[in-house]
Amino acid sequence: MSRAFNFCAGPATLPEAVLKQAQSEMLDWRGTGMSVMEMSHRSDEFVAIAEDAEKDLRELAGISDDYAVLFMQGGASSQFSTIPLNLLGDKTSADYVNTGIWSKKAIAEARRYGEVNVVASSEDSSFSTIPDPSTWNTRADAAYLHYTPNETIGGLEYDFIPDSGSVPLVADMSSTMLSRPVEINKFGLIYAGAQKNIGPSGLVVVIIRKDLLGKARKETPTMMNYQVIADNDSMYNTPATYSWYLAGLVFKWLKEQGGVPAMAELNARKARKLYDFIDQNEFYANPIDPRFRSWMNVPFTLADDSLNGDFLKGADARGLLNLKGHRSVGGMRASLYNAMPEAGVDALIAYMAEFARERG
Amino acid sequence: MSRAFNFCAGPATLPEAVLKQAQSEMLDWRGTGMSVMEMSHRSDEFVAIAEDAEKDLRELAGISDDYAVLFMQGGASSQFSTIPLNLLGDKTSADYVNTGIWSKKAIAEARRYGEVNVVASSEDSSFSTIPDPSTWNTRADAAYLHYTPNETIGGLEYDFIPDSGSVPLVADMSSTMLSRPVEINKFGLIYAGAQKNIGPSGLVVVIIRKDLLGKARKETPTMMNYQVIADNDSMYNTPATYSWYLAGLVFKWLKEQGGVPAMAELNARKARKLYDFIDQNEFYANPIDPRFRSWMNVPFTLADDSLNGDFLKGADARGLLNLKGHRSVGGMRASLYNAMPEAGVDALIAYMAEFARERG
Repeated sequence: MSRAFNFCAGPATLPEAVLKQAQSEMLDWRGTGMSVMEMSHRSDEFVAIAEDAEKDLRELAGISDDYAVLFMQGGASSQFSTIPLNLLGDKTSADYVNTGIWSKKAIAEARRYGEVNVVASSEDSSFSTIPDPSTWNTRADAAYLHYTPNETIGGLEYDFIPDSGSVPLVADMSSTMLSRPVEINKFGLIYAGAQKNIGPSGLVVVIIRKDLLGKARKETPTMMNYQVIADNDSMYNTPATYSWYLAGLVFKWLKEQGGVPAMAELNARKARKLYDFIDQNEFYANPIDPRFRSWMNVPFTLADDSLNGDFLKGADARGLLNLKGHRSVGGMRASLYNAMPEAGVDALIAYMAEFARERG
Repeated sequence: MSRAFNFCAGPATLPEAVLKQAQSEMLDWRGTGMSVMEMSHRSDEFVAIAEDAEKDLRELAGISDDYAVLFMQGGASSQFSTIPLNLLGDKTSADYVNTGIWSKKAIAEARRYGEVNVVASSEDSSFSTIPDPSTWNTRADAAYLHYTPNETIGGLEYDFIPDSGSVPLVADMSSTMLSRPVEINKFGLIYAGAQKNIGPSGLVVVIIRKDLLGKARKETPTMMNYQVIADNDSMYNTPATYSWYLAGLVFKWLKEQGGVPAMAELNARKARKLYDFIDQNEFYANPIDPRFRSWMNVPFTLADDSLNGDFLKGADARGLLNLKGHRSVGGMRASLYNAMPEAGVDALIAYMAEFARERG
C-alpha cells in the first residue's frame, strides 16, 4: 500500500516530508557517517540538533525566556506524578478540573502525593461539556490549577483558557500543542506527549515558568526533578535523541507550512467539515456540546452499532486507518492532527456518505 | 562520507543492516501504509512487533518464564531511583559495590530512599580493579546487592558474578547485556539502557524475577512501579514504540550473527587485539588491572597528552569517530559494542600504530 490516511489518536500520523527526510538521513546524517541515533548526545552535531529544535519550538509556540523548555522521557503519564512532586512545594493541595479520562488519570496520580480538590466535573453529562468556570470551586491557596485542554478520548476541547489568578495554571496539552496558538504566558506549566503533533512517542515536552523550578520534594526521583533537567539542558542522562531529532524535523516542517496560525486555520476547517457532515447526516452522531468539540479528536457513532465492524473493514480497504474508538468508549474516532491533510478528511467524509447511503 | 567506524560509548553504533531495514520501512511498514512510529501501540501490528522483540530477547539472553521483561523509558538513570523504590520493601538498607562513576550515581540516588551499605570500593585504586569479593562487607538482611558489571567510563568489567546468597542480585548491565552470555538465573533484577547493544536511546530493558514484583513503596510514581508495568505488558502508557521496534531489529540481527555466544567470541577477539596492541606499544597505555579490562570500553592514554587533539583530528579524518574519553577522565576511549565490526578495530589499530610512529 502507498501511504494511508492514518486517523490514529497517537502515536499519530507524521508529515510524509519528515519521514522522507529521516529516511534519507538514516545511515548518514549530513556526511557524518552516522545515523542521528548513533550520535553521542554530547557531540557538537547532536547538541546543535537539540538546540535548533528548542529554538524552533520557542518560535512556533511563542515561548519567552521566562520559561524553560524540557525534553523529557516517560510521556504525559509520567508527568502526572512529576507535577505534584515538583509543584506542591509547601502547599497541601492542588486544584484539578475533571473533564474526562485523562483528567481522571492525572487526578488519581496527584492524590498519591497530596490533597486534590476537584473544582468542577462534567462527569454527570458523560463528559460532553466543559463546566462553566463561574461555578468552579477553586482555592486561592492551591499549589496549582490543573486542566486538560483537550480530552483525546472523549473529543472534548476547551475554547478558553481558565483564569487561575495568581495560582499557576498547569495544562496537559498533549493534543493541543501546536494545533492552534496558545498564550503561553498564561501558564505556569504546559506538558505535551510528543506522539500527537510533535513527533514519535518516548518524548514529552515540558514548558515551565522558571520561577516554578527548584521546589521539588525531597523524595522526587532525580530524573523527575525539573530543576535538574533544566540545569542540564535535558541531558542529565542520555535523552531520547532520535525522537528529539524527529521533533525538530516536525518543527521545521511546521514553519514551512506557515507555523501555528496556518495549522489552526487548516485544523479548524478540517474539523468543521467533519462535524458539519456528521450533524447533517442522520446516520452519524457526535455527543459533544458543539461549543466544546475537539478539533483534534472527532468521536462519532453509527446509527446501528452492529455495523461498526463493516464500517471499519470498508475504511481499512480504502486506506482510512485507525478509526476505531478508544476501547473505553467504543464507536469511532477520527483524529485530525496537524499532519492529517485535508484530503484525508475529504476521503473520510466521502466514505462515510457512501456507507450511510448503502447501509444506513 | 560513507559509514564511519563510530566508537561512541552511547548512543553507540548500530548494525548497518538494521539501519537499512529501518530506512526501507520508514514510510510504509510491510504494506500497512504507515511508519512503525505512526502505529497505535495497541494495534495488532505493533503488539506483534513488541511481542516478537521480547521473544527474541528471551531467546538470545536465555530468560526464563520466572522473569518479567519490561521495556521502560527514562534510561538506566531512572532505574537508579526505581530500584530502591520497588525493592527496598520493608528492609531498611541495600548493599552496593562501588567500582566507578556509574556505581556512584546509583549509590547517590539510592541513598535518597534508604540506607546504602557500600560493601566494597575500588576508589583507592582510581577504580582500576574490582575489590576481592571475599572482602565485601555484605549484609544478610540487605534488600538487594547492586553492582555495575561494566563501568562504561572507567573501562572496568567484572569477570565473575558475585554470590549474593539469598539476597537478590541487581545489576546495571547497560554495557554488558547481549555482549556475552550471562546466567540470568543468578539475578533478581537486571537493567540495561538500550543505547549500547540494544537500540536507540529512550528505552531501558528491565528483567525482573517475578517474585520481586509488587513491593513498591506507596510513593512510587505509577510509571515507575514494576508491577504496573509488568501487568500492562509495558503499555501502561504509550511506550517508546520506535525504539522498541529498532531493538527488535537488532535482536533479529543478533540471531543471524549466531546469537550471544558468537558475539562474545567476536567481542573477546576485538578487545584482545586492541589491548594487546596498547600493551605492546609504549606510546599508549591502559590503566586497568588486566583481569578486569572491559570488552566493551577501552580507555587509553597517549604518552603525550598535548597530542590528544591531533590524534582525534587524524582519527576523524579517517572516519574513526568519537574516540575522545569521557569529560570526567580525559584521554581516549574506544567502545567496541556488538555492532562495531572487527574491521573497525583493525583500522583503529593501524591508525594508532601510524600515529605513534610519526608523532611518538
